[in-house]
Amino acid sequence: MNVDHVGIAVPDLDAALAEYRRQYLVDPLYREVVEDQGVEEAMIPVGASYVQLLRPLAPDSPVGRFLASRGPGLHHIAFAVASIGSALEHLRREGVRLIDEHPRRGGGGHQIAFVHPSGLGGTLIELVELDA
Amino acid sequence: MNVDHVGIAVPDLDAALAEYRRQYLVDPLYREVVEDQGVEEAMIPVGASYVQLLRPLAPDSPVGRFLASRGPGLHHIAFAVASIGSALEHLRREGVRLIDEHPRRGGGGHQIAFVHPSGLGGTLIELVELDA
Repeated sequence: MNVDHVGIAVPDLDAALAEYRRQYLVDPLYREVVEDQGVEEAMIPVGASYVQLLRPLAPDSPVGRFLASRGPGLHHIAFAVASIGSALEHLRREGVRLIDEHPRRGGGGHQIAFVHPSGLGGTLIELVELDA
Repeated sequence: MNVDHVGIAVPDLDAALAEYRRQYLVDPLYREVVEDQGVEEAMIPVGASYVQLLRPLAPDSPVGRFLASRGPGLHHIAFAVASIGSALEHLRREGVRLIDEHPRRGGGGHQIAFVHPSGLGGTLIELVELDA
């Protein structure tokens, strides 16, 4: 397992990217609209992981509602796993509440699934299978 | 730069560690009380980074106040930098608000400094110099 990325909700992607460049001298590898999740995302490589900046496409999307209720900031942590099917099956057997019962296509074309934050006391977890 | 760790505030460290083990089959490398920050922390290796679970030692500590106002969950992201002095000097020149004007000793004996979340629109950043 690896920390694939840390997802951060921002209201203005251009402004956020400018701050990351100015303060930490880092730039995104790519930007992508992921309609399925209602976001535009920018992936900034930081060592073996990414900082993922997420701008909601609409206020009534998951990240839009997060911004409205919690404000900008840390949104989720994504773990890279060898098999997302096996990971979901294990979590299901352990009685953990899933947001995605089955993997779906996320940013970068990877298979992803979200685990409900209730499972880890408030931390939203995303699973990513990199080689799918 | 690397993502050294992602800090997560929890009210009960034993319960949180049990959930991480049950759900993700991971265990902490070490646990440590860091009086200076008012926390007990557990560092769980995940690939090239750590998940850092933080239990406040008292309600009127920074993490205690975070738990009271925001609830448990993602607290900060820590970047490993080659020189924390150079990084702080750069941020100071750029007019970024710092929590720690000078490095101090954090968990694992490393030199650390926190950058105010206002600098990156709500994300609390920790800088860690691993070889100090």
